[in-house]
Amino acid sequence: MKITAVEIEDVRFPTSLTADGSDAMNKDGDHSAVYVVLRTDGDGPDGAPLAGHGITFTTGRGNDIVAMAASQQAAHLVGMDVEALAADIGAVYRLLTSDTQIRWLGPEKGVVHLSLSAVMNAVWDLAGRLAGKPVWRLLADMTPEQLVDVADLRYLSDALTREEAIALLRAKEAGKAGRIAELEATGYPCYTTSAGWLGYSDDKLRRLCQEAVDEGYRHIKLKVGTSLEDDIRRCGIARDVIGPEGILMIDANQVWDVDQAIAWTKALAPFDLLWIEEPTSPDDILGHAAIKRAIAPIGVATGEHCHNRVMFKQFMQAGALDFCQLDAGRLASINEIVAVLLLAAKFNVPVCPHAGGVGLCEMVQHVSMLDFVAVSGSREGRITEYVDHLHEHFTDPCVVANAAYTLPTQPGYSTQMRPESVAEFSFPHGSYWADRLASESA
Amino acid sequence: MKITAVEIEDVRFPTSLTADGSDAMNKDGDHSAVYVVLRTDGDGPDGAPLAGHGITFTTGRGNDIVAMAASQQAAHLVGMDVEALAADIGAVYRLLTSDTQIRWLGPEKGVVHLSLSAVMNAVWDLAGRLAGKPVWRLLADMTPEQLVDVADLRYLSDALTREEAIALLRAKEAGKAGRIAELEATGYPCYTTSAGWLGYSDDKLRRLCQEAVDEGYRHIKLKVGTSLEDDIRRCGIARDVIGPEGILMIDANQVWDVDQAIAWTKALAPFDLLWIEEPTSPDDILGHAAIKRAIAPIGVATGEHCHNRVMFKQFMQAGALDFCQLDAGRLASINEIVAVLLLAAKFNVPVCPHAGGVGLCEMVQHVSMLDFVAVSGSREGRITEYVDHLHEHFTDPCVVANAAYTLPTQPGYSTQMRPESVAEFSFPHGSYWADRLASESA
Repeated sequence: MKITAVEIEDVRFPTSLTADGSDAMNKDGDHSAVYVVLRTDGDGPDGAPLAGHGITFTTGRGNDIVAMAASQQAAHLVGMDVEALAADIGAVYRLLTSDTQIRWLGPEKGVVHLSLSAVMNAVWDLAGRLAGKPVWRLLADMTPEQLVDVADLRYLSDALTREEAIALLRAKEAGKAGRIAELEATGYPCYTTSAGWLGYSDDKLRRLCQEAVDEGYRHIKLKVGTSLEDDIRRCGIARDVIGPEGILMIDANQVWDVDQAIAWTKALAPFDLLWIEEPTSPDDILGHAAIKRAIAPIGVATGEHCHNRVMFKQFMQAGALDFCQLDAGRLASINEIVAVLLLAAKFNVPVCPHAGGVGLCEMVQHVSMLDFVAVSGSREGRITEYVDHLHEHFTDPCVVANAAYTLPTQPGYSTQMRPESVAEFSFPHGSYWADRLASESA
Repeated sequence: MKITAVEIEDVRFPTSLTADGSDAMNKDGDHSAVYVVLRTDGDGPDGAPLAGHGITFTTGRGNDIVAMAASQQAAHLVGMDVEALAADIGAVYRLLTSDTQIRWLGPEKGVVHLSLSAVMNAVWDLAGRLAGKPVWRLLADMTPEQLVDVADLRYLSDALTREEAIALLRAKEAGKAGRIAELEATGYPCYTTSAGWLGYSDDKLRRLCQEAVDEGYRHIKLKVGTSLEDDIRRCGIARDVIGPEGILMIDANQVWDVDQAIAWTKALAPFDLLWIEEPTSPDDILGHAAIKRAIAPIGVATGEHCHNRVMFKQFMQAGALDFCQLDAGRLASINEIVAVLLLAAKFNVPVCPHAGGVGLCEMVQHVSMLDFVAVSGSREGRITEYVDHLHEHFTDPCVVANAAYTLPTQPGYSTQMRPESVAEFSFPHGSYWADRLASESA
């Protein structure tokens, strides 16, 4: 069975029209995805044609640039044997990262890393479907050596050796079955950001916070950073609704310099905050460390723009973050994510993946389940983001119940989009955009 | 006078055929440029049609991805008034960096930062030509306040405030005229990498080292990192040719993990090295700091892949580098370079820009001249890279004499390519590539 073709779609949802996803840095994002489909000439265990589906998330303009990069990277896969590929995904990853001409454009960051994520996400979806397993299970069923062979440990050996990684996984082998049973019973806890977008009115904020509480959420996250006066008022509304037992987080989306981040967070400290997220430049490891020292016991969270495992390594070495918010569309797929999960376990940093956008919730449920079952072995102090937008475009959307992701059971990485959605929202030729662009130019 | 059109060319030179530019990471680069031309409807002070020319450098595949990003960014400039633009280039820079949808693709790194560099380099070339001044002089003639207004100081205030930056520049105002006279007399010292590419034979290495010594160079840089045995032999050849008074540097192009970098560099220490360049991942600030502590007095140099000013800030805060090798096509043009020059002056780190590739030598001569005239005020312990390749494709190529860049005198940023070169090497439709691709498919 071979990969016969690659299809790349630039899919954009017009979320800027309703301020969904708006924050202090990103005021008008159109939540978008580069969608990679790997076609094969064979069928999966279910008898249907086998294909792999991968996504990375962007916020609109430039999605076409990432699509172009994905197209160049994925071209290497056409003609490859599907069983051989699935048997050694580490080798596929190394093949795609060994193009030194493309490497110059990063290295391992920005557009070519986002696109690599989309392509490798499609490879992992394909491997899961071939095995008839959800991706979290495919990984959890690996031996420690197999899982470490998947992980990209390059540049990490001063913090984590291969031998340490294997020992760490081996120590968690005994309880796997029990932890899977726990997940089947109660799922993986999540929090909602759907209430707190900056562009929402106070009334809408209060109503959405109340709805979240009614649905069982204990955590609420608010976007902050444009006006301190507004932030004080909005934190007051949220705290009022969730009560003293509720847990409140804030997210500044990188708008502050270091000293400003410290002052602003301290001004909001009376609202009893669990964390401040992305207080400054996502590249500023030492800046985050300074902020963390200054605002404790409020925690520092970051990661959705942390571009690779080398950056996460340093955030952990420097004691610069309390919550690791890795992003499943920005890190180069499972191969790099497993490396970061291992680092986090070594440094005892809880992983609370970033989600939202398009398809991120679908992917991070697998990541958090894997972390609990096979790597950290714990859900203590961990909570995964959930945003209740755009799931209707997926064939196997994540299911959240009682403020927890339920365990995925379908084969693959949950990243297949509905064909009708792709046909409607492909840019610029899908029916939605064709109509809108025609009416705007009329 | 307005900007009427933007032209973007994907220009690739087939340097992989001769191993020019080969190193342990980049074995087969085709040195390439995204070439941005801003057309106007007016003439410059010389009476010729006024245009701005900007470049970023890549190593081949993916140059089209950067060109696509540059095209989207540069589109904002069409219709802008040229005098207004030149009067406040900081505002142009902020306009192009304020597209938050594009920002998601970095932020401030990778493809969208390389492309921003090319576009802003064209703006600076245009401004220099409008003023009838080389870019170094346009900048050196600014007041401290004007120069700081150009600089992007966002996220730097914990290390360098605007007031400190102004004071730092003011302290160097008195000696400007004298330093310009020094540059006119003796130029800015450079070293050559042309001798030491990894793909060259021992005989070619020895011959090129001897030619460099004969041309007056005291510094030689060798690529290392594939085979320690080979590196020992090659360092021996170079040291033999340049003698005990010559200065030898080595460059590993990111191939090592931290511990391996320390061991390998120590093994080459008997050859009396000034610096090890790019010993590990360019993102690994803390790793470089560990290497620097372990191998002193050998220095650590890095910067050609250091993707923005926030990373340089941390390299300096952490005491992780001895030589700042900023790259004029990777940082977002003069606006970000001035910020890094200011940081380096504050932290007393010598700036030794990376060059080579396509057009980098042409640009960094302006950067080093500016640093000496207006920012650091010193050439002590500083040396700028020079590679004797591909200059014939420029209308105003850099001129090196007596192992020093001579002071540029023509208006602009020295980044205009010869039309014949563009016509021949544009990819894939230029005459060279059209012929080669036709013969390869025949």
